[in-house]
Parts: sequence; structure tokens; C-alpha cells
Amino acid sequence: MNSKKYTVGIDFGTLSVRAAVVDVSDGRELASAAVDYEHGVIDSFLPGTSEPLPPGTALQDPSDYTKALETLIPRVIESAGIDKNDIAGAGVDFTACTLIPVYADGTPLCLTDRFRKEKNAWCKLWKHHAAQPYADRINELYAESGGHWLDSFGKVISSEFFIPKVWQTLDEAPEVYRAADYFIEACDWIVMLLTGELTRSYVLASYKAEYSDEEGYPPDSFLRMCDPRLEGLFATKGGGRIVRTGEVAGRVTAAAAARFGLPEGCAVAGGLPDAHVGGFPLGITEPGDMFGIFGTSSCYFLLGEERRDVPGICGCVKDGILPGYYGFEAGLCCFGDHFAWAAGRICPPEYAAEAERRGISKLRLLIEKASELKPGECGLLALDWWNGNRSILVDNELRGLLVGMTLGTRAEDIMRALIEATAFATRVITENFISHGVPVRRIVAAGGVPRKDPFTMQLFSDVLGLPIEVAATSQAAALGDAINAAVACGAYGSLPEASAAMKAGTEAVYLPDAGRKKTYDRLYAEYVKLHDWFGRGGSDVMYVLGEIGAGV
Amino acid sequence: MNSKKYTVGIDFGTLSVRAAVVDVSDGRELASAAVDYEHGVIDSFLPGTSEPLPPGTALQDPSDYTKALETLIPRVIESAGIDKNDIAGAGVDFTACTLIPVYADGTPLCLTDRFRKEKNAWCKLWKHHAAQPYADRINELYAESGGHWLDSFGKVISSEFFIPKVWQTLDEAPEVYRAADYFIEACDWIVMLLTGELTRSYVLASYKAEYSDEEGYPPDSFLRMCDPRLEGLFATKGGGRIVRTGEVAGRVTAAAAARFGLPEGCAVAGGLPDAHVGGFPLGITEPGDMFGIFGTSSCYFLLGEERRDVPGICGCVKDGILPGYYGFEAGLCCFGDHFAWAAGRICPPEYAAEAERRGISKLRLLIEKASELKPGECGLLALDWWNGNRSILVDNELRGLLVGMTLGTRAEDIMRALIEATAFATRVITENFISHGVPVRRIVAAGGVPRKDPFTMQLFSDVLGLPIEVAATSQAAALGDAINAAVACGAYGSLPEASAAMKAGTEAVYLPDAGRKKTYDRLYAEYVKLHDWFGRGGSDVMYVLGEIGAGV
Repeated sequence: MNSKKYTVGIDFGTLSVRAAVVDVSDGRELASAAVDYEHGVIDSFLPGTSEPLPPGTALQDPSDYTKALETLIPRVIESAGIDKNDIAGAGVDFTACTLIPVYADGTPLCLTDRFRKEKNAWCKLWKHHAAQPYADRINELYAESGGHWLDSFGKVISSEFFIPKVWQTLDEAPEVYRAADYFIEACDWIVMLLTGELTRSYVLASYKAEYSDEEGYPPDSFLRMCDPRLEGLFATKGGGRIVRTGEVAGRVTAAAAARFGLPEGCAVAGGLPDAHVGGFPLGITEPGDMFGIFGTSSCYFLLGEERRDVPGICGCVKDGILPGYYGFEAGLCCFGDHFAWAAGRICPPEYAAEAERRGISKLRLLIEKASELKPGECGLLALDWWNGNRSILVDNELRGLLVGMTLGTRAEDIMRALIEATAFATRVITENFISHGVPVRRIVAAGGVPRKDPFTMQLFSDVLGLPIEVAATSQAAALGDAINAAVACGAYGSLPEASAAMKAGTEAVYLPDAGRKKTYDRLYAEYVKLHDWFGRGGSDVMYVLGEIGAGV
Repeated sequence: MNSKKYTVGIDFGTLSVRAAVVDVSDGRELASAAVDYEHGVIDSFLPGTSEPLPPGTALQDPSDYTKALETLIPRVIESAGIDKNDIAGAGVDFTACTLIPVYADGTPLCLTDRFRKEKNAWCKLWKHHAAQPYADRINELYAESGGHWLDSFGKVISSEFFIPKVWQTLDEAPEVYRAADYFIEACDWIVMLLTGELTRSYVLASYKAEYSDEEGYPPDSFLRMCDPRLEGLFATKGGGRIVRTGEVAGRVTAAAAARFGLPEGCAVAGGLPDAHVGGFPLGITEPGDMFGIFGTSSCYFLLGEERRDVPGICGCVKDGILPGYYGFEAGLCCFGDHFAWAAGRICPPEYAAEAERRGISKLRLLIEKASELKPGECGLLALDWWNGNRSILVDNELRGLLVGMTLGTRAEDIMRALIEATAFATRVITENFISHGVPVRRIVAAGGVPRKDPFTMQLFSDVLGLPIEVAATSQAAALGDAINAAVACGAYGSLPEASAAMKAGTEAVYLPDAGRKKTYDRLYAEYVKLHDWFGRGGSDVMYVLGEIGAGV
């Protein structure tokens, strides 16, 4: 057992980076802090140019990450009131696949004069969807190729993943592709800046670039089919030592210690995707345990004993969540974003006035009003595809639907239908797992919504017919990093051991109500019919609307 | 030619009665005025009781009509500054089928102590939909019966019509049915109060009670199938002399003259439904001419040369609009009500503030913002069934649908989709007429929307591919009554002659734009697919939502 007492978790989100200093003995958080990125998401104009960015583009400036980190670490250590030499390790998570083309020394191409004005040289954020045509082409070619490397990823690649983003760069800006020594996950890039070593997170490589121990990365024969210039991608520009969960990627260099404020020589664990890492503090240890991160979108992670090829999921990866188990991932493109849409776009002025009078947000008021209705009383059913469908249809072109409108329909009816729709969409995912031989027995919920909104969690339990536990932490990701770091620095011998000691408590448990479930079963049957009709080829109206809207 | 100079049009709407004094020589309006009904629409509690009314119930108090008329006529005559003895005739129109059970002397049962507290004794307003189960049963029996009397009414009876409303009364309150000497349209009741004579408007009897010259009223053999107690309905409780458009129903009695302020002996034309009468001032004279009354709902009336059995329309009646032609009627349950819904229910506070700052209504602002979009730019498609579907599906249980929602969808996008949907729904009606051999060549628009909202009329023209003329009158109904009265009192020999002299001018003409029509053709094709899928049995989700919402 290491004599040092603390680890630091560093959680890079979409708009800010958050860090927590955690006591290795019991997982207690001594301090946490967050710093926003200067440029946030770059989706309208490239900074310093007047070039409008194409629809779906979502970029970031890598120097935002480092600037924020330089401020953040000293601040959180000071706030914790500890001696920084008592820090034994650090863990990093990041949104993913968030991809930066860099030179061999780690310099991002977009930070050089040569490539400053070329959008493909910038960091492509996870939700950069402009690579969709490349994903579509890959999926077509995969179906023709007779290969198997995508089978455990639902047989469909997402536009958010590694290969579509790299291919878009090659196709649109071949000079960027040629000049880049590596295409690197922002997560691995931060680890490289801290340790001076080029490593690749096993979990990132597997979920986002389809790496597996048995078969390695997707084969060159397939990359050639896509574009002959992609041949050798993973051997060269995708290279780097694979580091698994709980392993040390390297140690903080003197230069990094001076720049970021971590102690020199401190162990840095291999990086992890921001969603996956959140499971470590949630007590997810048995097959059938699922955890959900409920935020603007929602991600679900499920432990299974065996590999199963489940269609429409984001991936099934050996050791992907917890070593020793298969980690299955699925999710909704839109969760809290739905509710924020309703509050922001269709909340009438008298409700806004009521919310202001009572000192609550419009969102809170609409959810309160929605919570006073009985199941089915709103008279509406929605397809929750305001931002496309991640699972199990894997189709960004799908769009939202509301049916059942009358002259009496109110904003809270629409809010209720949106909440119910996200629960139905989650049930489509759990039933899809179950029908493909992967049991789902309980759900542990983390993220912004679960602690703030008991009504929504109860509704999920009623719709799913499953117990839902809410973890007593708002920072599952940073705590997960700290647990990962605690294993990497040798404080614990294994991840389950570290999790057991450092995990967060349970704040609430929701159990399904049989009466409400019965009504929801009827509504769910209708949801599935609409889901299949609009999502599986019965109607192409959503695509046509997208084309006409885009002037096609 | 009658030497007297003026006629009076009296237009009973849903919430108020309006009258106009009109110069017989040229149709010039000398004065008009309106008086609201004291109780408006009675749909929550029966006045003087705490009995909540069932969903779909919509009643009125007949004494509201007479009280309003007693105030109105003297006021409008005084305001016109004329000698009332120069009034040659009066014409009355009314919402329909708006039905009152009365004793032989014209006293409504609901105005007696015995029946004051029985809801079925009250006047059932046109939009009373609580008789839907009776309409459903009639439609089932009709399909089984092999009869033909409903064929020219789209083979389907509406819950708004005469027989379902009477049958509901019989079934729920047999004592009311037994005690009533007549079930009478409120329109014919007003004519009876003015003239002392029981007559039945031919147009009302035909459109609302399926009367025809050839076959009379629906046969007793069918009524017996419905309920043996209905036998003899039309020979007894439905009796009264049939009066046609342009004919005199009777003359104002001394008692009525004293009560309402019209001159004694003044000719009273047979009554007309409020929508149909609006065509007289609009220059609707040729086959293929259609006029539309655009208000909370919309009604379309089309002149045809031959009888055609067109499915899903409200009716095809010989001489129903203009003597000598077949009058076809169809319509939307919801037109302006859609737009009012959006303004009232989903207009966000910042738009409300902008509207207030600019001194315009939220409705006006949303339509303005919607008008700035290109066809298809909103990305949405709606089924305009917020209040059911009148034509061509004839189904009050259908509900609204919105598809294409994204996180960027705004209130004005929804407003645009609703306006477009009402135009697509209108095109379904015109194409249904055309495909059944009834040409549609031009549309003349009247009602509240056409003069206020050029954008919507241009959109209709683009969607329909037809010229749309807007008449320069806001009171087509009252002016139509005055024209009808001018024929009844002998000022003109025929209705076309009177119309030609007294009609309103044209304020604007909208012609279709080929480019916009091309985009709308694509959207319309998608509209038709959704219309047929949800409206013709592809999906029963709208019914299921209605049932679950009602606790079934």
C-alpha cells in the first residue's frame, strides 16, 4: 500500500474541465473545481476567420484544454488544503471520440500558422456530425465486405467514431492528413502532455476505433476499400502503446509538473472516456448491472458475462468497463436536451412568470406540472429523436415526432410526453439487450438529472419495470478517475477492490409501481410501433423533411 | 321592383349575433352591430346547477339569442339612420346543426321549470360532439343496411348532425323526447318567433338532416333499426313546411315587431346555415367556383353541375348553395384554432415581450416569423387534426401530429407547419373532388383570416395551385342574408340577379408561384402518406391515446 494519501481525478467535459482531489482510503472528496474552455464549442465560424462552418461541424481549440488545466490543478490542490506531494496519482477522462491531428512532439496542427485556417486541422469534438457521409459509406462497404470487426458494435459505425472523422480529414484536407504524425484522442493527448509518452487508452481504442486484443484494429484490407490512402493508418498515425484500465501510462515529467502543478513523478493512469469511467464509483460489479449517465444525452453501460453481438448498440468490449467482464454500451442522443428544448422553446409567458415569482427555472416548473399528470393523461406520445437516434437505430437523420395533439394540449403535456419517450427509448435498449441474451437486472443512475428529479427516475422505474438506484455523487466521472488512479499508483490491487473502498453511497432507490407500469406497457406498445414504422423504413418522411430543409 | 330600399341580414354566430342594414340597390352596408350571448358556450356546468357536463358537450341558452336580438335590431336600425318602414325584408342565418327541443308554441323545453335541470332539454350547439357514439352506431347500421340516403353525404354521418343529436336526447332523456313537440334548428326557431310560422329551411334540412326532394327525409325503416322509438320522427317532431333559398317563410307579426323592432309585415326569408349563406356576396356563380369561409374552422362550398357521390364530404345538395346547381360542402374542423393554439400554448416569453413592445398580438408575431421562412425550411410536417378531421376522413377521434422536430425547432416553425398543414388538408379536399368528377377552378375566400393574413392566402394558392380571390367584406354572412332577403321580398327576381347587384368587391387575388408549388408538391406527397397511414387504419395510435387518456 502506497503511503501517499490522495489521487486527483480530471474530467474533461464538453464545455469545461473539472478536477477533484479524493482521499484514497474512502473516496471522500476534499475539493473540486471547474474551469470553462475559452472558445467552448466552435460550430459557426473558425476563430480568426469569417469562414462559416458546414452544418454538423463541432470543433474545439486544444489550447483551451491546456490553459484551463494550468489554472485548475493548482486551484483545486490549494482548495483541498493538502501538501501536493501527498498526491500519488492522477486519472484523466475526456469526451470521446474527440480527435486531434498532431505532430510527433504533440503539437496540434491547428496551433501552427500553416494549418490555423484549415478546419480539418482542428480538434473534432465527439458531437462533430459532419463526417456522417463517411460513416454511411463505411457502413455500406462493411455490409458488402463480409467482415466481422464491426459485429460487436451493432454492425454499424457512428459518425462520431475514429475512422469516419479521420477519413473526412483525409478526403477534405489531404495535406492535413499527410502532415499529421498522429490522430490522437484528446484524452491520450493530455496523458502525453503530462507524461511525455504516447499511449492509447484501451477503452478508447476499443469503443471508438474498434480495437480488440484478438484482432487488433480494423484491417487494412477494409481501409483500402474505403480509400487506398488510408492503408497503414493504425500502424502509423494511429500508433501508440495500448494502456488498460488501472494501468500506469507514465509519470508526470518535470516540465509538466512545472506547467500544470502536479507533483513530478506522480503516476498517471491510462485515460478513459468520460461516460465509461463514471461506473467505478457506482457499485457496478455483477453481470446484469447497468449504469446510466443522465445528462444532456444519456449513456448506458451494462456488464455481461459473455460476448454477444447485439444489433444497434455502441459496442461490446472485453474489459471495457470492469476487467473480467464484457462492457456493453448504448445510449440516447438526447435526454436533458429534450427537456431544455421544451423549457426554452415552448414554455408560455404565464408559466415563465410563475417560475420567476417562485424563484425556480422554467424547466423545473414544466417538470413539476408534468409530474402532476397520470400516465397517459397528457394524451401524447413522442418519438425522442430531436437529435437523432444513437441506439438501437443508429441514425442521426431521424427526427422527433409528437402525436395526439388537441386544442387542449399544453406545454406540460409535451414535457410529460418527452420524459416518457426517453424512458420508452431506454426500454427499447434494455429489451434489445435481454432479447439478445444479455440480462439487465438493475440500473444505477448518475449525472445531473437523477438527483434533481425524483419524478423522472420513478417514471423510468415504472416504464422499465426495474429498480433504479441513484448514487450520492454529482461527480461520478472525476471520482472514477480518482479510483482508476488509485489502482494505477498501487494503492489497491484491483479496480473492484478500489471501487468497493472508494465508491459513492446510494441516495435513493426507486421501485416500479405495478399500476402505472400497466398503463405504460400499453403506451410502450404504441411507442414500439411508431419507432419501427418511422425508424425501420415504414416511412421516409423524416429523411425527406431533412433533405427539403437543407435545400436538396 | 319593391319600392322599399333596405334589407336586414341577421347572422347568429357561435358567441354573438351580428346584424347589418344593407341597401338593396347596390349591397352597400349602412350600419352593422353585434351583441354577445350572455352565457356563450355552456360546456362545463349547466347554469344554476353544479352538474358537470360530460366531455364534448356544448350547449346554449335559447333566451340568449332572443335577448341579444331584442337589443341588436333597434340599435342597428338607429345606427343606419333610416326609417324602419323602408325595410323590405330580413334574412337570418345561424350556426347549424344547432338544435332546440320545443313545445308546439315555440317554447324551448329548457326554459320551463320541469326541464331546466336536464341537459338534454337545452339547445345542442353545432359543436356538441357528445353524440359521437350515436353517430358511430348510425354509420355502422348504415353500412349494414344497404341504403342510399347517406351516399351524397360521403356515406358517413357526423355527430354534429340532426339524427345523432336527437337520438342522444331520446336515449339519455326519453322524457324530453316525449315532451318535445318539435326538434328545431335554432335558425328555424328564430324565423318562427318572427313570423309565427313553423318552417324548415331547405338547406338546413338537406345538409343537416339529409332531406332531398326526391326521397324526403331518411326512411323510418332505418330509424327503426337505430331505435324503434325514433319511428315517425320526421313526420312529427321533425315536421314543418320546407322553404327554399330566396323564398318567403312568413311576415313579421305584430307581436314580433313590438318585441324585436322590425316593421310588422316585413318579409322574412327562409333561414340558412351561417357558412352557406356567405357565398351570395362572393360572386360564386359557375361550376368549379368554390368559396371558403376561413375562421376558427374552415368550410368549403363548391358549385357542381351534376350530382356526384364524393366520399368523405359533408354533403352534396341540389340547389344547396345556388338554385340550379349542386352544392358540395366539405371543411376542416380546425383552422384559425390551430394558430390560436400555438399563440396561446407554445409562444415563448421573449416573443410575447416582443409582441407587446410592438403592439401586436402573439398570433400576429408568430405568423410574421413563420412567413419569413421558405417552404420546407421549418423542417416540420403536421397533420392538422388538433380538433379531429371533418373531411375527408370524418373522424372526430383523430388527433394532431408533428414530425421533424429537432433541438432547433422554434414556435414559428410549428406555426408554419400548422399553416401548411391546413393548406395540405384543403388540397386533399380539392383533389378528392376533382378525382370524383367535380372540378375546382378558383377559390373565393371570406372570413376573419383572409383579409388579415395575405401570407396564409398566398401559401394556400401555392399549395393548391389555384387562384384565390379575397372578397372585400368582413361580413359575408350578414350580407348574404340581406341578398337572400332581397329576393324573398321581391326586389330581385332571382338569387344570381341579386348577387350580381349586391355582391362585395374583390380586395386581392393570389396566384400560385411555380417554384414554391414544386417544393409544396414534395411536402404534400409526404402529407398524403401520413394522412392515409394515421387516418385510414395504418396506425391506431391516435385512438389508443384517446382511450388511455379517457381512462378506458
